Amino acid sequence: MATAAAEQPGPSGQADENAMRRAIELAARALGATSPNPVVGCVITDASGEVVGEGHHQRAGGPHAEVHALRAAGDRARGGTAYVTLEPCNHTGRTGPCAQALIDAGTARVHYAVGDPNPRATGGADTLRAAGIAVTQGLLEAEAAAGNAAWLTSVRLGRPYVLWKYASTLDGRVAAADGTSRWISSAASRADVHRLRAEADAVVVGSGTLRADDPHLAVRGIDGAVQPLRVVLDTNATITSAARVLDDAAPTLIAVAEDAETGLPGVLRLPRAATGLDVNALLAELYARDVRSVLLEGGPTLAGAFVAAGAVDKVVGYLAPVLLGAGPAALADAGISTLADALRLDVTETVHIGPDLRVTAVPTATKER
Amino acid sequence: MATAAAEQPGPSGQADENAMRRAIELAARALGATSPNPVVGCVITDASGEVVGEGHHQRAGGPHAEVHALRAAGDRARGGTAYVTLEPCNHTGRTGPCAQALIDAGTARVHYAVGDPNPRATGGADTLRAAGIAVTQGLLEAEAAAGNAAWLTSVRLGRPYVLWKYASTLDGRVAAADGTSRWISSAASRADVHRLRAEADAVVVGSGTLRADDPHLAVRGIDGAVQPLRVVLDTNATITSAARVLDDAAPTLIAVAEDAETGLPGVLRLPRAATGLDVNALLAELYARDVRSVLLEGGPTLAGAFVAAGAVDKVVGYLAPVLLGAGPAALADAGISTLADALRLDVTETVHIGPDLRVTAVPTATKER
Repeated sequence: MATAAAEQPGPSGQADENAMRRAIELAARALGATSPNPVVGCVITDASGEVVGEGHHQRAGGPHAEVHALRAAGDRARGGTAYVTLEPCNHTGRTGPCAQALIDAGTARVHYAVGDPNPRATGGADTLRAAGIAVTQGLLEAEAAAGNAAWLTSVRLGRPYVLWKYASTLDGRVAAADGTSRWISSAASRADVHRLRAEADAVVVGSGTLRADDPHLAVRGIDGAVQPLRVVLDTNATITSAARVLDDAAPTLIAVAEDAETGLPGVLRLPRAATGLDVNALLAELYARDVRSVLLEGGPTLAGAFVAAGAVDKVVGYLAPVLLGAGPAALADAGISTLADALRLDVTETVHIGPDLRVTAVPTATKER
Repeated sequence: MATAAAEQPGPSGQADENAMRRAIELAARALGATSPNPVVGCVITDASGEVVGEGHHQRAGGPHAEVHALRAAGDRARGGTAYVTLEPCNHTGRTGPCAQALIDAGTARVHYAVGDPNPRATGGADTLRAAGIAVTQGLLEAEAAAGNAAWLTSVRLGRPYVLWKYASTLDGRVAAADGTSRWISSAASRADVHRLRAEADAVVVGSGTLRADDPHLAVRGIDGAVQPLRVVLDTNATITSAARVLDDAAPTLIAVAEDAETGLPGVLRLPRAATGLDVNALLAELYARDVRSVLLEGGPTLAGAFVAAGAVDKVVGYLAPVLLGAGPAALADAGISTLADALRLDVTETVHIGPDLRVTAVPTATKER
């Protein structure tokens, strides 16, 4: 009955959808700030359906979304409904279990969008039901899952979610024949990239990009953004102390080969691969450091290594309406020699960003992520 | 007064726009069939504003749009209004002047969208005014000009309008490293290309595409389409009699270098250029043969030569959501070595065609074409 209402929303189903959509919006505010936790949003309505509390999980170690929303609602939560983007947790981590908090507040109904795949946290729905609360799962599930795609993917794969971002000409070049590349994409597109950085836990480039662009990689122009970990794959330890990425605007991790000679303190040593460093070893190490989402901003060589490793979960291409006819292509050797072996994607979004086109796509086999 | 009405359409201005929009639709039916003439559409309303006649120019040597529409309207054109996408002609070519036909029919008002840039045909508006007809120019001018972009450009430049079409992966490749390229784009995109062929007077490929794909280049799947002239730039006369392009599905023109040895009859001999044949000489020759629009379907080398010659007026890219990481890029050497010299475009349309993205763009300096 509740499911049918969600599929064909009547007056009450529509109100439920509106509340859950608002919870999804709230959750998105903390993208890039909550790892290793997911983003979660919560809306509480009172017994009459009026919104009396909103909240979202803001950072790991801080209160969960439900707690923020219940605090705002106070006694008005009694007999009301909670809309949560993810199944309320059942375990006591750094904070108490949310299922118990909802029970204690006297909530009569709980709608949650996505089940918690985390074995340590799952079971919240059962706890709620055992306490006599009406629990439904699946309201706006696809939207809520999309909002948590990075975290859900990282739980499933045991490695960080990887978004590969590039900016190229319409003919696929990331630089002209003489190496000039500033700027192929527009100021609007470059500003948009700062949003991607803010939503990621780590930003990764290779030594080619380091040498060519001396990138800074920190987030600029977004109030309250949590700076990502800046990661440079510097196989042969060629970075100099003047590199902009070594300033204190954000934390930085330099990864070098196990046998590289360097006096730089705190470097991460990784096995060598056919070209550069072992991508899977890097991702495992980042995961261990609580990185759940990676923005890959590296050049064609590094992107090729990630594609070859099957470690690209989403592609965001900024296509500038420019033709060059020469210069490096956006993606270099990914171990694909014939069309049948190509990495096929599904376009999930196309938008105009200034004069450019931003194309978002995900690998076909993993569209349902 | 009439101009103001067209800018801020009231009830009558809206009716005028509707009639002109219909005339533009009618004109588009004959794209690819009228060269060296433009496409033209005409709608006639009677004195009360009711549509009583429609027509479009169907082929060179056949009646003009106004004549078709006036024939359909008969006596009901008297005191009525004619909506024509292009200024009614004033000269007697293979058919009589349309201005005189409108006068003879007793038309009270004429709205035309675009002035005729052809010095032999212009003056129709003056003739109409001299006969006491109320004449206004500019109603839906931009839309009408866009519908005649190829012809208007060819009149202005004295060479055929060139639309470069390509199909590439998201990383800009037109084939994999081993040369496989069937199929990068979807069946829906390939069907769409047949529409582009039908709208063009000539389809041009180079010997690289000839060898790699043995293309047929005729229009399939479009009822009533006029087949384009198939043009192969075969610099060193390597084509064999088995080539599919030599069948009788459509006319074919083989262009070879002035010094090439060939026993093939009827070849066009052109000067050599740095790579291949001289693009401007080719276009001049095609123009002399009444070709006003060219669909460039050649590979990266030929496209590079056209871009280098400044002879690309529109770009249509079918971007397949596929990554290869190796293989030839969509556009080869166009004489551009640094980003400042890149050919900058404006995206005019982006649509999804099946799984692919079709991006249409025009050179920035020529956006107003």
